[in-house]
Amino acid sequence: MSEKLKGLWPALFTPVDEHGELNAKELEKLIELLIAQEVDGLYLLGSTGQGFLFNEKERKEIADIAIQITNKRLPVMVQVGSLSTDESVRLAKHATQAGADAISSVGPIYYGASEEMAFEHYKKIAGATTLPFFPYQIGKAATGGLIKKLMGIENIIGMKLTTVNLLEISSVHGASVEKGWQLFSGADELMCHASLCGTAGAIGTTYNLLGSTCKLVRQEFLNGQVMLGTEFMLALQNLIEEIIPVIWTFFRRAMILKHNIDIGNAKAPLLTPPLKWTDAQVLERVNELEHIANKMKQMVEHN
Amino acid sequence: MSEKLKGLWPALFTPVDEHGELNAKELEKLIELLIAQEVDGLYLLGSTGQGFLFNEKERKEIADIAIQITNKRLPVMVQVGSLSTDESVRLAKHATQAGADAISSVGPIYYGASEEMAFEHYKKIAGATTLPFFPYQIGKAATGGLIKKLMGIENIIGMKLTTVNLLEISSVHGASVEKGWQLFSGADELMCHASLCGTAGAIGTTYNLLGSTCKLVRQEFLNGQVMLGTEFMLALQNLIEEIIPVIWTFFRRAMILKHNIDIGNAKAPLLTPPLKWTDAQVLERVNELEHIANKMKQMVEHN
Amino acid sequence: MSEKLKGLWPALFTPVDEHGELNAKELEKLIELLIAQEVDGLYLLGSTGQGFLFNEKERKEIADIAIQITNKRLPVMVQVGSLSTDESVRLAKHATQAGADAISSVGPIYYGASEEMAFEHYKKIAGATTLPFFPYQIGKAATGGLIKKLMGIENIIGMKLTTVNLLEISSVHGASVEKGWQLFSGADELMCHASLCGTAGAIGTTYNLLGSTCKLVRQEFLNGQVMLGTEFMLALQNLIEEIIPVIWTFFRRAMILKHNIDIGNAKAPLLTPPLKWTDAQVLERVNELEHIANKMKQMVEHN
Amino acid sequence: MSEKLKGLWPALFTPVDEHGELNAKELEKLIELLIAQEVDGLYLLGSTGQGFLFNEKERKEIADIAIQITNKRLPVMVQVGSLSTDESVRLAKHATQAGADAISSVGPIYYGASEEMAFEHYKKIAGATTLPFFPYQIGKAATGGLIKKLMGIENIIGMKLTTVNLLEISSVHGASVEKGWQLFSGADELMCHASLCGTAGAIGTTYNLLGSTCKLVRQEFLNGQVMLGTEFMLALQNLIEEIIPVIWTFFRRAMILKHNIDIGNAKAPLLTPPLKWTDAQVLERVNELEHIANKMKQMVEHN
Repeated sequence: MSEKLKGLWPALFTPVDEHGELNAKELEKLIELLIAQEVDGLYLLGSTGQGFLFNEKERKEIADIAIQITNKRLPVMVQVGSLSTDESVRLAKHATQAGADAISSVGPIYYGASEEMAFEHYKKIAGATTLPFFPYQIGKAATGGLIKKLMGIENIIGMKLTTVNLLEISSVHGASVEKGWQLFSGADELMCHASLCGTAGAIGTTYNLLGSTCKLVRQEFLNGQVMLGTEFMLALQNLIEEIIPVIWTFFRRAMILKHNIDIGNAKAPLLTPPLKWTDAQVLERVNELEHIANKMKQMVEHN
Repeated sequence: MSEKLKGLWPALFTPVDEHGELNAKELEKLIELLIAQEVDGLYLLGSTGQGFLFNEKERKEIADIAIQITNKRLPVMVQVGSLSTDESVRLAKHATQAGADAISSVGPIYYGASEEMAFEHYKKIAGATTLPFFPYQIGKAATGGLIKKLMGIENIIGMKLTTVNLLEISSVHGASVEKGWQLFSGADELMCHASLCGTAGAIGTTYNLLGSTCKLVRQEFLNGQVMLGTEFMLALQNLIEEIIPVIWTFFRRAMILKHNIDIGNAKAPLLTPPLKWTDAQVLERVNELEHIANKMKQMVEHN
Repeated sequence: MSEKLKGLWPALFTPVDEHGELNAKELEKLIELLIAQEVDGLYLLGSTGQGFLFNEKERKEIADIAIQITNKRLPVMVQVGSLSTDESVRLAKHATQAGADAISSVGPIYYGASEEMAFEHYKKIAGATTLPFFPYQIGKAATGGLIKKLMGIENIIGMKLTTVNLLEISSVHGASVEKGWQLFSGADELMCHASLCGTAGAIGTTYNLLGSTCKLVRQEFLNGQVMLGTEFMLALQNLIEEIIPVIWTFFRRAMILKHNIDIGNAKAPLLTPPLKWTDAQVLERVNELEHIANKMKQMVEHN
Repeated sequence: MSEKLKGLWPALFTPVDEHGELNAKELEKLIELLIAQEVDGLYLLGSTGQGFLFNEKERKEIADIAIQITNKRLPVMVQVGSLSTDESVRLAKHATQAGADAISSVGPIYYGASEEMAFEHYKKIAGATTLPFFPYQIGKAATGGLIKKLMGIENIIGMKLTTVNLLEISSVHGASVEKGWQLFSGADELMCHASLCGTAGAIGTTYNLLGSTCKLVRQEFLNGQVMLGTEFMLALQNLIEEIIPVIWTFFRRAMILKHNIDIGNAKAPLLTPPLKWTDAQVLERVNELEHIANKMKQMVEHN
């Protein structure tokens, strides 16, 4: 199984209705879309999936339904971290029973996490399952010592990175390469750059919208399409920089226009301020990215 | 009522049993102790009360029981903030019905809170109750603009500060003094210093252990006992600096030794590493603080 | 001598002419003013004195002239730190020969200072003189270990603090109290608060303008005038918060209006943007501070 | 000329003798080496060249000598920034007269630089010369607005970046691309990664030691050798991470062993703690990097 736990994984949106509750119909459409786009796996209930804004019961239901819809056509990793370690342990057990292929977890959320706190938190979660476990990277300070300790836990086989500092990624890679850890980068806007630092995959929001496109770009960049990879990344970075203040609104609109899937409004305290772009402008920006990927595809086919 | 919402307020421990569940018997002993110590109010389910590590149902039960035990002998403020704004709103409604005298809330927890996010989160919570509401200060960046906006919400009549930067406290005071905001400082180790910056009260962990002592010191410092106040604060700062790595273990042991109240182990992910001090050493440090306060008392009585 | 190295010390302005060169006449007027105001000492060529914007030759001349004018009527401390340790050593030797009573020095300036770098830098400077030496505090990270090492150097008998974090001040005090270090706080706006953390004195810009006033307030606050001390500090903090963007322009104008001393424009890269306040407004703010100090004086005389 | 101001530029060491004074003989050997290595230009008196630890007179002499030795065989850029803007202006004028091809400057050093301070500082320096001017990037905060203003100054045609945050690089690129700014990245360990963000060149310490090697790797990475580029960068990052605490000692030893050039000890406050590696170990690490570059060369020649 572990050889499947790499590549391009959308951090799956959790579509909700107007009451902020799961919209199972749109979730099904989203999962079918991503299977058709041939992404490499699905990452549930992380920051993008608003895992932290559903309660324990809702999170279990969402994981159940998503795993049933996917039905083994793609590997599924469930993010189980929450404020309380005990709740995280229960969610890890549930994910295992529900048929997930791996779990992931954030570190301690509210109380500032020391290396020791993070380790004990992760150790209890790891002990609740036999599934492969990808804990989140915890800041810079805790990096070195924490990773050494986590390498002693058998079912921890990699890490979900959170940094935009590539030297930290290289440093985690250097420290864990002997145990063969598979690292997933977390910053969409550094998808290609991070792949120069020893990552095995990327988990991100953008891949819901542009799954096959981003997969192609990441692969062909690694195969040598540096100039077009650069062009794509600069365009993606520029887009993300512009939409940050309205990111949830942008993605909702773009998913409707591009894929006819409504992920709903973000749940509070997240905001969905109005978008100043017309539908045509939203599509234009998305299509610009696809256009660069298409040039890359043609270059590859010509060779 | 609002004139009661100041002075020295313990951030109440939530005593738990060996399963991490509420120990109502010890909670009752703690509340009776603090009433006897003549503190000025009780602050429930904040960081010290581990509010974030109980689920919604448990938080409601704890608030209910604590408010019933207190039975109007002291004002009670309930911290209702949680990951989800909707849950915070439900907790605010519950606190109102349960007979609390005020509520408080942290800002958005997991997702980095912009000024706008914090405002919308607080506005929804404020709208769920007619009680006085003391939101938490949100970092330095959001200070100025956020405070101006919050002053427009009628039942927000003060703020729970979180900073050790006294200039920020003075700045919040300066911005809100016209609306008569009552500010509570949050750092025990700056209890007296913060009172020079326009605060009306202090909320903190130490006041569970040394309620009347800290109340005396804060009052008499303001009345002019600067030298003994300085001596007390230096001793308290020194103690806190030493116990930080074992703070939960220290307070559990000190509460048992001093008051025969067992608050139990902190809930995970909080840690309770072993204490290296003997019982005699724990008591010695607590008694040293009381000793300085007694000197102060004698000075006051002599005058 | 060391018992004189405490109390309220103006960080002396270095008055300059329109070419940015020393204006010795105005310097003489300033020193005579401060002697008349009965401040406790003079601190030369620090940040306020723009020490870093004069070259080695100019710094030696300024120190010579200031020490000659003062003529032992007040103790003088010369800040000798510069980019190069060798230059700092030469400036320390010069200050000794010129008749200074103590020296001070910033840590390494351009290259990020590790604890080890700061220690070696300070050790070389200390070795160049027999005068008492007050090195600058270097950030939070280097605090603990660096202080232990510096305590092993005989003529280092205190520290010039730079922080607004009072817990750091208490921590430095706690670590150095056994060797009797005399700490000078550096943030004018926390002049009284810092005195609760074990400081022996305060070095600051404001004391050029309001020497006797600030000296009175600090002393009487420590003698128990907490309420008026609070009122003064809130007014001072409020003033400083408002003038920060035009601080050099404000102080130049206020010194002219209040004391008929022209310190000149700040040297580039420091800026002197235009002041929006009229002369009357400048005086009003300064007089407000004096007015509070006068109330304090009357309270003291009545008792 | 401006089309020459890109590519791989060593931040030239300034070799010194045992008194910390310029060693002109070794400087000549170093410049000849780098010309032979076919690097794209020489960057004088920056952080690596210890520009900040020489005084004004010494800096002028060093620039004179280096420019004479180079004798137009490579473009030369002189870093002129210092504590005082006036001194920076004099150094800029001198560099122009001495025959430099471009200048560069750090922002205000000691006093925290606001956007406005940095702009005025750079504007005065730009006005002192007709040469192309590459100011340093000033932190994240000042990025946007400062760049817009600097684009209005004719002879500022690019920037020397200082960040390891690649999104900042892309952001500066995005803001300045319309005026055709040429950006030099500053972090050796992200030499290739930064080239994905729109940089035109790289300035760094490592290129003194491995000039032709790094030039080859950067070029062939951009030509599509992603896998070997990744291998090289991971090895370089790993080396830099290990040598950081002894970086000056390592480079001195490596330059002697590899090129028979002695750059001397770093000037205080910089430290040169003893190296724990044997000469064989030093060479092994340098040769490992060359070995990867050679594999890359063979790959290129095979295609």
